[in-house]
Amino acid sequence: MAASRPEPLKERAPLMAFDYERVFADAVDGVREEKRYRVFTDLARIAGRFPHAVHHTETGPRDIVVWCSNDYLGMGQHPAVLEAFQDTASRLGVGAGGTRNISGNNHPLVMLERELADLHGKENALVFTSGFVSNEATISTLARLLPDCLILSDQLNHASMIEGVRRSGVEKKIFRHNDLEHLEDLLKAQDRERAKLIVFESVYSMDGDVGPVGRICDLAEKYGAMTYIDEVHAVGMYGPRGAGIAEREGEMARLDVIEGTLAKAYGCLGGYIAASNDIVDAVRCHAPGFIFTTALPPAIAAAATASIRHLKGSGAEREGQQRQAATTKHVLRSRGLPVMPSETHIVPLLVGDPELCKAASDRLLDRHGLYIQPINFPTVPRGTERLRITPTPFHDDELVGELGEALVETWSALGIPFANERIGVAA
Amino acid sequence: MAASRPEPLKERAPLMAFDYERVFADAVDGVREEKRYRVFTDLARIAGRFPHAVHHTETGPRDIVVWCSNDYLGMGQHPAVLEAFQDTASRLGVGAGGTRNISGNNHPLVMLERELADLHGKENALVFTSGFVSNEATISTLARLLPDCLILSDQLNHASMIEGVRRSGVEKKIFRHNDLEHLEDLLKAQDRERAKLIVFESVYSMDGDVGPVGRICDLAEKYGAMTYIDEVHAVGMYGPRGAGIAEREGEMARLDVIEGTLAKAYGCLGGYIAASNDIVDAVRCHAPGFIFTTALPPAIAAAATASIRHLKGSGAEREGQQRQAATTKHVLRSRGLPVMPSETHIVPLLVGDPELCKAASDRLLDRHGLYIQPINFPTVPRGTERLRITPTPFHDDELVGELGEALVETWSALGIPFANERIGVAA
Ligand SMILES: Cc1ncc(COP(=O)(O)O)c(C=O)c1O
Ligand SMILES: Cc1ncc(COP(=O)(O)O)c(C=O)c1O
Repeated sequence: MAASRPEPLKERAPLMAFDYERVFADAVDGVREEKRYRVFTDLARIAGRFPHAVHHTETGPRDIVVWCSNDYLGMGQHPAVLEAFQDTASRLGVGAGGTRNISGNNHPLVMLERELADLHGKENALVFTSGFVSNEATISTLARLLPDCLILSDQLNHASMIEGVRRSGVEKKIFRHNDLEHLEDLLKAQDRERAKLIVFESVYSMDGDVGPVGRICDLAEKYGAMTYIDEVHAVGMYGPRGAGIAEREGEMARLDVIEGTLAKAYGCLGGYIAASNDIVDAVRCHAPGFIFTTALPPAIAAAATASIRHLKGSGAEREGQQRQAATTKHVLRSRGLPVMPSETHIVPLLVGDPELCKAASDRLLDRHGLYIQPINFPTVPRGTERLRITPTPFHDDELVGELGEALVETWSALGIPFANERIGVAA
Repeated sequence: MAASRPEPLKERAPLMAFDYERVFADAVDGVREEKRYRVFTDLARIAGRFPHAVHHTETGPRDIVVWCSNDYLGMGQHPAVLEAFQDTASRLGVGAGGTRNISGNNHPLVMLERELADLHGKENALVFTSGFVSNEATISTLARLLPDCLILSDQLNHASMIEGVRRSGVEKKIFRHNDLEHLEDLLKAQDRERAKLIVFESVYSMDGDVGPVGRICDLAEKYGAMTYIDEVHAVGMYGPRGAGIAEREGEMARLDVIEGTLAKAYGCLGGYIAASNDIVDAVRCHAPGFIFTTALPPAIAAAATASIRHLKGSGAEREGQQRQAATTKHVLRSRGLPVMPSETHIVPLLVGDPELCKAASDRLLDRHGLYIQPINFPTVPRGTERLRITPTPFHDDELVGELGEALVETWSALGIPFANERIGVAA
């Protein structure tokens, strides 16, 4: 058909036509100039040998150790999880074949939602294709349904929550990170009858600090606000059944919406909310990001359910992770490395410069076979560029020792400041 | 910890606090009153026996035939797809374990993107967690990067494209569905130098009609606009290698962005764009919905690649689908059923009333063991409520015959108008 068509006009289009490619090329150049251009590391994990993986390079594959996975407990390779995944696929096939409403509502997904409601002690739960979508869709939908809603949002909330706040179009106020006084001032300034939604996280993943869950609930009750917590970096890892920080602190029942992911400690894919029947049903009926998209594959749902059930009953992975995270912090600190303060399993190491951060990561990978992604702006503020290390139960003491060696070599070779060479920086 | 905390204030909170649950309950009641409340059918497909599935009911499981799957070619159960899925999971585990940038960039995903770029004859491709996210993230990002961009959007575009347009925040103009004159009028009214993005679909999934791809490209070139096509309901199913309607019509090279899904004809999960290096890189660097979310699992990526490769080389599934869709239209029409006009594999059957539509679907399922979801507002305009039937190569002539019988019984029992009983309606 193209042959019978007149010659495309583009060739002879007047020069004044808008130059689209130029704008996009410039948009990328800007990122490059700020030294934030990202080249993705081409990896293949090895089931059964986690955290070992194959790094595909131009000169061929090589073995490396991954130190920055968010499969925090190695559940993505757990035999029970793999078995549920394989077995379900062999019985039900790969894709769901439709949206939740149109033929995609598969039985394993129904079971997963029951499991999640039970996990968080809520009436109901709803699964989305990702944690990102669960935040974006739920926050925007709830805030839009509430007349004249005001959102109060922690300053360091994740991009997906920020997208939800923006997409809602409602008024928002940002409170300083974990600052209860600031939050109270903002709440106090509002009529008690006004609908207010406080959105915050439990574990903030780049610093490893924890939100004051109970005290935010106190304020919410005092001023008549609703609470929405993102427990993405806590579910599976904290609390006696792995339901997160709110479970550990006995606060689950006071939170209106608990949001989590199945893609980090649970080792699979997908996101969810757990809440009252009314809230879940309102989101189910009104959120485009939930309604108009293919459901998660049954094998993913079954694998996630297996992972949640395992971690409900077993504390061994959580203990192993906490132990190895503590060991790692201790070993790195004792070698003089600038470990940033962190209350959790996350071990951030301050570099403070985007180019040095990238160079350190490259050197660790090329010379030492250790993969730790540099974390630069906009994921963290400029000047706090860092290596973010996530020890799992599978990073044993020997691996931790090797990590310490490699980091000291890298810090010395590149002239990155050690802890005692920094003044006035939070490290 | 909860014990040491003061009694929650909620109990003694003054009555004037905002009643959140009431608002959400009302939001659901509104949907119920409009007869659009959805109860999801609890299904388990049976690999190897598609389109047969198990329907989980309160009284136990029963066998049914699915007539509304978007696994249009049954690829979700194809042996090559299943094998790639199983094999990759056993070698690499379940989840990706991180975002694309932070340890989640798995090798099968890199290979999938190469396959997609080749499929569409573009320099590059980018995979998202869903087709919904690919539309939302790409449209909003491109439009935001282009200074003073105007979006021209087909009136019947999918919710995910509408979300992208909204999220971009730029000026938009809606053109009447597939109306080239209207589109040209809107383009003509603008300065040629202004950045303009035309967003449209190839196959519109609820009516089964097709957008005038080549003539939209003509207009885009004439007026200096960029083109973005959603081929979600066409990829795998049209064109010699299954690249979609634009491939069939020899127009792929003239489109700036081709968007598709891996979750319908390819039988898996995920969405993508194929475009120039600059466009792909701009989205990769700037779209929150791409950057801040866990990558697709390697097993999903490998299964999708196997599916694309198979359908690149084999036309048998496409031919089988076209044949059975034509047979279905013919059989239903010959029984006097109101088949709506459709140029594609989609067979919409007009009911024209939400309650009757639901009742017909319920009767088909309960009495005949056939599952066809009712399609009501807001998915389609009020008054055009329908059953949307999607025959696959696996719906053989016998199944088509049974479908005809069951529909006639249902139409008669419920008093739904047959074709000759309708006047002035597009059926
Ligand atoms: C705090 C937070 N919320 C949500 C998400 C998104 O979760 P998912 O990866 O399942 O999309 C992430 C990271 O990916 C996160 O760090
Ligand atoms: C036209 C169109 N675009 C995009 C999507 C979203 O694709 P996905 O299901 O992969 O999210 C759909 C339906 O789900 C659709 O019908």
